[in-house]
Amino acid sequence: MSTVIQETYQPLTEETAILLAKERNLFSENSTLSCTEIGDGNLNLVFHIKDQDGKGIIIKQALPYAKVVGESWPLTLKRATIEAEALKLFKKHAPDFVPDVYYTNEVLAITIMEDLSHLTISRKGLIDGNEYPLLASHLGTYLANTTFFTSEFGVDKGQKKELVGKFINPELCKITEDLIFSDPYFDAETNDFEPQLTSTVEKLWKDTELKLQVALLRKSFLTEAEALLHGDLHTGSLFVSKEETKVIDPEFAYFGPVGFDIGQVIANLLFQAIAFEEKSDSIYSQVRTFWNVYQNQFSILWEHDNLEPFARIDGFLSSTLQKYFQDAVGFAGCELIRRTIGLAHVADLDGLPDEKERIAAKEKSLALGRELILKRNEFTSIEELVTFLQTKKYE
Amino acid sequence: MSTVIQETYQPLTEETAILLAKERNLFSENSTLSCTEIGDGNLNLVFHIKDQDGKGIIIKQALPYAKVVGESWPLTLKRATIEAEALKLFKKHAPDFVPDVYYTNEVLAITIMEDLSHLTISRKGLIDGNEYPLLASHLGTYLANTTFFTSEFGVDKGQKKELVGKFINPELCKITEDLIFSDPYFDAETNDFEPQLTSTVEKLWKDTELKLQVALLRKSFLTEAEALLHGDLHTGSLFVSKEETKVIDPEFAYFGPVGFDIGQVIANLLFQAIAFEEKSDSIYSQVRTFWNVYQNQFSILWEHDNLEPFARIDGFLSSTLQKYFQDAVGFAGCELIRRTIGLAHVADLDGLPDEKERIAAKEKSLALGRELILKRNEFTSIEELVTFLQTKKYE
Repeated sequence: MSTVIQETYQPLTEETAILLAKERNLFSENSTLSCTEIGDGNLNLVFHIKDQDGKGIIIKQALPYAKVVGESWPLTLKRATIEAEALKLFKKHAPDFVPDVYYTNEVLAITIMEDLSHLTISRKGLIDGNEYPLLASHLGTYLANTTFFTSEFGVDKGQKKELVGKFINPELCKITEDLIFSDPYFDAETNDFEPQLTSTVEKLWKDTELKLQVALLRKSFLTEAEALLHGDLHTGSLFVSKEETKVIDPEFAYFGPVGFDIGQVIANLLFQAIAFEEKSDSIYSQVRTFWNVYQNQFSILWEHDNLEPFARIDGFLSSTLQKYFQDAVGFAGCELIRRTIGLAHVADLDGLPDEKERIAAKEKSLALGRELILKRNEFTSIEELVTFLQTKKYE
Repeated sequence: MSTVIQETYQPLTEETAILLAKERNLFSENSTLSCTEIGDGNLNLVFHIKDQDGKGIIIKQALPYAKVVGESWPLTLKRATIEAEALKLFKKHAPDFVPDVYYTNEVLAITIMEDLSHLTISRKGLIDGNEYPLLASHLGTYLANTTFFTSEFGVDKGQKKELVGKFINPELCKITEDLIFSDPYFDAETNDFEPQLTSTVEKLWKDTELKLQVALLRKSFLTEAEALLHGDLHTGSLFVSKEETKVIDPEFAYFGPVGFDIGQVIANLLFQAIAFEEKSDSIYSQVRTFWNVYQNQFSILWEHDNLEPFARIDGFLSSTLQKYFQDAVGFAGCELIRRTIGLAHVADLDGLPDEKERIAAKEKSLALGRELILKRNEFTSIEELVTFLQTKKYE
């Protein structure tokens, strides 16, 4: 009889995590297993279990609260189910770019999955100066596949509606709604910015033109169920090497506007260009590759697998892609702003040791974010965006 | 013990309908009840039960299939639950314009509700030449209240998401997707048009410019969960008198783009102007009143009850209303077209006895529908739309 899988939730320890791995027969019988808890402890426990040969697995367990800036927010464990279901669905549509899931258990709120410890979190790798020549193209393919096959273009509409219901994710969406689409634009308690930015931030709070456009992007995030999104697709959600890219942590998954995921990717690449000016051409080129691969792969799927009766109508594919792109530019702008003055920062900017340089980078991030939001509907191609970025070196 | 309320579905008869009314104590103990089945038998049974004093109730029961053009489509009974839940929610937000619900039973797929037999179905009343001076204003208020209080502007976002899940309605939405947003634009079996229209219809099937815009409206219908819609708000879903308006039959209810309901109302008013040219000024004035009341009431609710952090940002209310309006103009165009050449027609046009006049009216409906779809984003006010309609008398 199972000793670990109980009928009520309890947090695992390193010891019970090993017992669970044995019970699930994930290692050969005589293995000697070791376990380390490697999570950051904010939202989840993450256990890394290895045998004597270094073969490993990951057990991720949701905690029933979120520790953020010392405060404790209660969070339901349902997010573990959403994450597990999203991983399985994304794996189905983009098998090369998603870890294997070996076992899930709703009561314990756990997912046992592939050990990716031979890879690096891409934000860290990029900050350390590593290059990932396939990252942009992998992400373009991953996103084209997952967004196409969860939109009405690629999945039966009845099935899509069932999925929409299954992935209703109010708690995690609320975090995004508040921390991305609201708090940074008001004098909210969650905001966190360096005092040198105060005058810029106060100006932003009064910027009605900007706030109207953020309100419209927020409305899109709240109402447009285009496809199943990852929902938190920044460079900290990617395990990478020069050859591999694996997208992890889709606990924010829900049906939303496709441009949101695309925009998160673009913004989190742009932080590198903002923080390290010498990298900017390389980063812009990655942004270009990412979008071009997305567009190309989405177009191929549209051509071959589109279930919609109007698929062959001239202009429908291009107007769909144009909408995704312009939305993405706007959502990228929101991400640039919220990561600079909101609750959750990025190490790309915060890690710049020189104060003057760091503040200048943050000012750039805010200014660029604002322009992308306001001008998003003027960009009709990736080349226009890249040219715009190149002329905006904010020397 | 109950004799009628069983654990499995069975269609009621006039006899068991009376038994059910007695079991639910909907009449006083010594009443003498009579019952007539008054449904059209396509989708539902409708029993009208009266006592000796003429006091009545309606029992509506969903059938597990839809009879359309002789064919039988299986349909789940879940739509009875959706209809009952929608009636209750609309009643809460627009009490004057929705019938009372006395009892619902999911297993039997029934709703027992207020007897509205003192009122007339508005399509019939309008065709008969009656005037309903409060209809447009009532509908404006009804729709402003129901769409505001089921959008994120008027209901807590977590609660809205729960409602979105509850009102996922794939089967009935599929009917709309096919019959409004697809079949009329292709040589589909369900289409039904008079042979004299053939050349116009064949031209429409090749009209790529139009079809692209219909594809975009269809995408909006499929993806934009702005508010809980009635989903089938034509003049056949309204019981009216000179003083009263009651909106019935929301079995197509789901979360969709607000402009869809608004557009259905506008189009179904316009059929009157198309069929009876002498009425057109009066109808245009009703369209104007309907929208002005909607806009006014929605603005009042926005001012007093808006829960969104950006509610006070200049331009957000007006851009929201403008989007609803332009969507509505496009959706009205779709309704004009599908009711003329698709499966489900309107008596306003089909009932015109003179062939030449009838075909001319149908040609007008198609031409106007096309223009409204193509030009929808050019209309920035109701006055512009009315002026456009007035200059389009198609003499």
